Amino acid sequence: MRTITHEQLDDIAMGAAVLGTGGGGDPHIGKLLAQQALKKHGPVTMIDVTELDDEAMAAASAMMGAPTVMVEKIPRGEEVIEAFQRLQEFMGRKLDATFSAEAGGLNSTIPFVVAATLGLPLVDVDMMGRAFPELQMGTPTMYGISATPMAIADEKGNSSILNTINNTWTETFARTVTIDMGCSAMIACYPMTGKQLKETAVAGTITLNETIGRTIRESHQQHLDPIESVRGAVDGFIIWHGKVADIARRTETGFARGTATIAGVGEYAGRELLVDFQNEFLIARDSDGQVLVSTPDLITMLDAETGEPITTEALRYGFRVAVLALKCDPRWRSQAGLDLVGPAYFGYEAEYVPVENRFGNGAPNQEGSND
Amino acid sequence: MRTITHEQLDDIAMGAAVLGTGGGGDPHIGKLLAQQALKKHGPVTMIDVTELDDEAMAAASAMMGAPTVMVEKIPRGEEVIEAFQRLQEFMGRKLDATFSAEAGGLNSTIPFVVAATLGLPLVDVDMMGRAFPELQMGTPTMYGISATPMAIADEKGNSSILNTINNTWTETFARTVTIDMGCSAMIACYPMTGKQLKETAVAGTITLNETIGRTIRESHQQHLDPIESVRGAVDGFIIWHGKVADIARRTETGFARGTATIAGVGEYAGRELLVDFQNEFLIARDSDGQVLVSTPDLITMLDAETGEPITTEALRYGFRVAVLALKCDPRWRSQAGLDLVGPAYFGYEAEYVPVENRFGNGAPNQEGSND
Repeated sequence: MRTITHEQLDDIAMGAAVLGTGGGGDPHIGKLLAQQALKKHGPVTMIDVTELDDEAMAAASAMMGAPTVMVEKIPRGEEVIEAFQRLQEFMGRKLDATFSAEAGGLNSTIPFVVAATLGLPLVDVDMMGRAFPELQMGTPTMYGISATPMAIADEKGNSSILNTINNTWTETFARTVTIDMGCSAMIACYPMTGKQLKETAVAGTITLNETIGRTIRESHQQHLDPIESVRGAVDGFIIWHGKVADIARRTETGFARGTATIAGVGEYAGRELLVDFQNEFLIARDSDGQVLVSTPDLITMLDAETGEPITTEALRYGFRVAVLALKCDPRWRSQAGLDLVGPAYFGYEAEYVPVENRFGNGAPNQEGSND
Repeated sequence: MRTITHEQLDDIAMGAAVLGTGGGGDPHIGKLLAQQALKKHGPVTMIDVTELDDEAMAAASAMMGAPTVMVEKIPRGEEVIEAFQRLQEFMGRKLDATFSAEAGGLNSTIPFVVAATLGLPLVDVDMMGRAFPELQMGTPTMYGISATPMAIADEKGNSSILNTINNTWTETFARTVTIDMGCSAMIACYPMTGKQLKETAVAGTITLNETIGRTIRESHQQHLDPIESVRGAVDGFIIWHGKVADIARRTETGFARGTATIAGVGEYAGRELLVDFQNEFLIARDSDGQVLVSTPDLITMLDAETGEPITTEALRYGFRVAVLALKCDPRWRSQAGLDLVGPAYFGYEAEYVPVENRFGNGAPNQEGSND
C-alpha cells in the first residue's frame, strides 16, 4: 500500500503511454484529469492486488472509443464518475476498489479520478499489461470472467447497463452505444471479487508504468540515451529507427484505424516499416511484407530525441522515431490468448512468433525470421 | 374490468393490424404467442385506465425492430418476459400492470403474454392509437414523460438497461442495440404511474382493436361488404382501390423501408398510388406527387376480398387492396405532435392536412387538395 500524489502521476501517465502501444489515450489529458482530481480530493491509496480482500468487489474504470475523437472531445473530469456510480446503483452495492482496464495515457490515469473522487483504493493491476482495442481482450476473459454488468455513460447524461452472455457481445453492444454517444464514452466494467482479480489480472502494471515514466524523466536529467534507457527498463527490443514518411488514418466503426509508414534511417536506411493500428499498433512489417512484430507482443513508437511515447493520433509526417517491441504477458501467448488477440483475430495471416525469437540473443535472424 | 380469453385475441390481433398501418408486427404470430400464454397461464384481466390506481406503476411491453426480420426470427413466447423482468430488477420493484406501446398485430398482443405469464392486469391503452416506427413517437413524450428506464433483451440472453436524457436518445441507443441483437428485440419501457398513464395514453385502444377485428369477422359471417364494414367501424375513408403493381422494400438502419405502388382499379383505373413506409405506412401520393394522406393520420391496406389488413412485409405483387385512411388521435395534430410524427419529421415537404379535410363530407376536393 502506498500513496500516489500529483508528482507520481507525471511518470505514470508517461510510462502508461509506452505500454499503451499507440492507444490507450493521450497521456497529457489523462495526467491533467487525474491531477485535477487529486488536487480537489487528496491523494489516492494504491494497493497491491495481494492486499485486496478475497471478498472485496472491484471494477475497472475506463474511457472507451476512438482516441482520435477523445483528443477533440476531452472529458471534463468528474463525469467519468458517472459510469462507476451507475454500476454501483445497478449492483445495489458500493464497490470497494477500482482498477485500470488497460495501460494507456488515459486509461491508466482515469481510474485515479474515480479513486480520488469516491475515496476508493486503486489496485495496482490492469487486465492487459498493455492496451488492446476491444473490450473482450482482457486477461479475465481467458478465465471465463464476465465483463458485465457493465455501465456506459456519456457526458450528456445518457447511460446504459449491459448484461451479456459473453464478452464478445459486451464489446459489440458497448461499441455501438459508444458510437451513438459520439465515439467516446466512460465505462465501468469487469466487476470482480478480490479473489478473481488476484487470479486473472496483470499485477503491478501501474508500478511498471511509473518505472518507465521515471526512467524517461531521469534519462533527461542525467543526459542518458532515453531510447536505450526505456528499452532497458522494459527488457525490450529496438526494431527500427526512422522517420514518419506517411500516416494514413480514419475513424471507422468507432476505432482509429490506419497505417504508419516509417522510412528507415541509419542502419535501416533505404527500407520502410509499415505499422498497422486499430487504436493500438497491431503489426509491424517491412516493405516486403515480412512480419517483424505482431500482437500480442507490444509495438510502441518513441520520439527519437526524448524517448517519449507517441500515440497514433499524435503521430505526424516527419517525426523521428525509434520503434520499440516488448514481450507481452505470457498468458497472451497461450492458445486462448492468441484466439483473443493474436494476429489472426485482427485479420492477418501471419503466425505469431514471440518477439524475442526474432530479436533476442540467439534469434535466428536479427532481421526477423521468415513466416 | 373484463377477462380476455383465447377467442377474443383473434379479434384483437386482427383489428390491431388495421391500426398498425402496415407495421406493428404480424397478427398471426402475435395471436399465436398470446393464445399460447393464455392457454398455459389462464386468461388476462384487462382494466380501463380509469381503474388503475394513481400510485400504481405500469410499463409498456413490446417487440422492437424490423417486421421483415420478425417474420423470420419468430419470438418463442416467454422470452418476451425477459425485458420486463430486467426492468423490474433495475427499478427494484414489481410493476403493477403492463400495457401496449402501439397498436399492431404483434405489439397489441405481446403485452398479453407478459400479463398472462406474470399474472398482471393489462391496461386498455396504447401510446399512439396506431403504430409508429420510432420509440419517442408516443403520446407520453408530448407530456415530458421519459421512455426510460427501459430494458431491452434478445433471445440469446443479452440485455441492456437504458437511461437517457430524452426519448430521442432512447430511440437512438435502443435502435442500434436492436440492430446488434439481430434487428429484433424485446423491450419494456415508459414506466409510468397510473396518474401519468391516465393523462398521457390513448385510452381504449385494445377495445377498439377488438371491435375492428370483430367487425371483419362478422362481415364474413353475415356476408356484408368487409371493406365498408371496417370503414364504418373506424369512421375512416376509402381513398383507393387497386392492385399492387410494385413493392420495393429494404431492411435498412434497423427498419423495413420501401414503397408500394398500387395501380388503380374501378374509378381509380389508369392512375397509381405510391405509399412509402418505414415499418408503417407514412404517406400516400398519386403519380403526380399529390399527397392524399400523410402521418400522423393512418394509412392501412385491406385485402379487397376479405377486408383483412395486410402488413408491409406481407404485401405482394398482384394483391388486390383497398386503401383505408383514418383520423389520428387529436393530440398528434398539435404542433408538438406534428414535430414528433408529422410528414416533415420523415423528410417530406408536404404540409399536414387532416384526412377529413381531403376526404370528408364537404371536403374541397375528393381527389385531395393541392399542397
